[in-house]
Amino acid sequence: MADTVGDLGEFGLIAAVAARLTSGPTVEIGPGDDAAVVRVADGRAVLTTDLLVEGRHFRWEWSSAYDVGRKAAAQNLADIAAMGASPLALLVGLGAPAGWPLADALAVTDGLRDESAEVGAWVVGGDVVGADAVIVAVSALGTLHERAPVTRGGARPGDVVAVCGRLGWAAAGLALLTAGIAGPDALVAAHRRPQPPYAEGPAAARCGASAMCDVSDGLVQDLRHVAVASSVAIEIDVSAVPVDGPIRAAAGALGVDPLAWVLAGGEDHALAACFPVDRVPPTPWRPVGRVVAGRGVRAGGYESLGGWDHYP
Amino acid sequence: MADTVGDLGEFGLIAAVAARLTSGPTVEIGPGDDAAVVRVADGRAVLTTDLLVEGRHFRWEWSSAYDVGRKAAAQNLADIAAMGASPLALLVGLGAPAGWPLADALAVTDGLRDESAEVGAWVVGGDVVGADAVIVAVSALGTLHERAPVTRGGARPGDVVAVCGRLGWAAAGLALLTAGIAGPDALVAAHRRPQPPYAEGPAAARCGASAMCDVSDGLVQDLRHVAVASSVAIEIDVSAVPVDGPIRAAAGALGVDPLAWVLAGGEDHALAACFPVDRVPPTPWRPVGRVVAGRGVRAGGYESLGGWDHYP
Repeated sequence: MADTVGDLGEFGLIAAVAARLTSGPTVEIGPGDDAAVVRVADGRAVLTTDLLVEGRHFRWEWSSAYDVGRKAAAQNLADIAAMGASPLALLVGLGAPAGWPLADALAVTDGLRDESAEVGAWVVGGDVVGADAVIVAVSALGTLHERAPVTRGGARPGDVVAVCGRLGWAAAGLALLTAGIAGPDALVAAHRRPQPPYAEGPAAARCGASAMCDVSDGLVQDLRHVAVASSVAIEIDVSAVPVDGPIRAAAGALGVDPLAWVLAGGEDHALAACFPVDRVPPTPWRPVGRVVAGRGVRAGGYESLGGWDHYP
Repeated sequence: MADTVGDLGEFGLIAAVAARLTSGPTVEIGPGDDAAVVRVADGRAVLTTDLLVEGRHFRWEWSSAYDVGRKAAAQNLADIAAMGASPLALLVGLGAPAGWPLADALAVTDGLRDESAEVGAWVVGGDVVGADAVIVAVSALGTLHERAPVTRGGARPGDVVAVCGRLGWAAAGLALLTAGIAGPDALVAAHRRPQPPYAEGPAAARCGASAMCDVSDGLVQDLRHVAVASSVAIEIDVSAVPVDGPIRAAAGALGVDPLAWVLAGGEDHALAACFPVDRVPPTPWRPVGRVVAGRGVRAGGYESLGGWDHYP
């Protein structure tokens, strides 16, 4: 009985991983060949990739292997949703030391599979290699269903800026864990496993969103990318940005300003979008600001907040 | 002036990398948004991914950063070709310590760009993160141009097995470097930068290949995957397998059997394919064996040779 990925060897590990995966009607060829083949009915492939590295993006003291798989899938699937597209397939490159427990490798796979299944996507291929730290490199493919992609560059003065999904939950959870506090559960769980509002990406596109991004580096920082790409300014009405109850409570307990988490916290993979004023979608989207002529982001004094930089 | 990737920061690095990339007519949205959009005219996306890790897949003493970029692209592009498809786009996830020279990050990018350009593909997106070792995670998208994919599972008894591209060159180059010998140049260069016969993948598909794979782990081992997937046996006529002059000379100098490199050496990304007997393609394909009923691979006593296992 193999205990580690090294016991099983490369091809044994590939077979063990592939055996846990499921497939669907758009998958013409799944894992096990030189490449996978996935049908994209409208002939446009939406593509994104993200790399997660042990000790940088997750810690085994704080996250299970299953959580890491869910999170690695979620951040890629959210990027697809942020184009107004629906995810179809994931590829996963897994690097790990030979002594890594086999159970963890399979749990990462299960997490990738289960998060994908929530949106009707499948893991269709991958690669396994030796490495000194665990690396999870995920790429995702999505479809636009004949619609135009919603980029960061389409915002126009007069548009309403709205958000959807959690803001600050993952950052609050990380702050609690860093402070040695293992609760409240909902916030810690939010750090371990984001819950992006996947379906709201295509919904915003259908509604006529002019620009969209996922909030992976912090609302202010991510909207700054939209402002630059669209050559506009964005004014955030800080009083309209939702500060959820658990965040308010945790901030009180730690003696910090909850808006720092809400405006600069990434990793929840909320969506932020701009809508022509007659096209703002209903709940769960919430208006939080306005696009105006000019440059940069104004956020009631919070605009200088940094966000996540992988080389801080 | 920034000297390291950490000096530039994540977003500065992304901008510097994106500025070196080129684009083409099938790229609807390139780098800089949440995801890229690439047109795949026949509505089928061919997808593959590979992970390269410093110290495991390359060493800075032996390979330049530009070579690493070329090699990372080549092994993914070869997987696309091995399905009978043509590459369209690459994604790259780059992990590195903050102190990594910026010049190296840009050289990896240039290598990825230039290898892709050789086959009419473009780098359309990516991710940069901090890591303790340099990691290059590449994914590739290809198109089948309305043809059926050529998998590993279609070989039938009676088919001719043929190869195309270099066999054993990269393995010989690695053996020379490991022995502290920096030449002959052609073999060492073959280790640093493979030259897969990309165009021969689609050519074999047009010719009617029944099965195909790229030779990344060694000819015997890769054909074993074809034999398993196709439920057949493969007989390699060892006397027909090309042992090129430089390999023979280097093997003589090191006192080893050149067939060990030719039959078990990976990383040249040659192509191996099976063809119905009336459909064998002309030069540069060379017949090296036959598909028969049964199981496994026979190779004149060399079948027990191992190939590349990432957890040896």
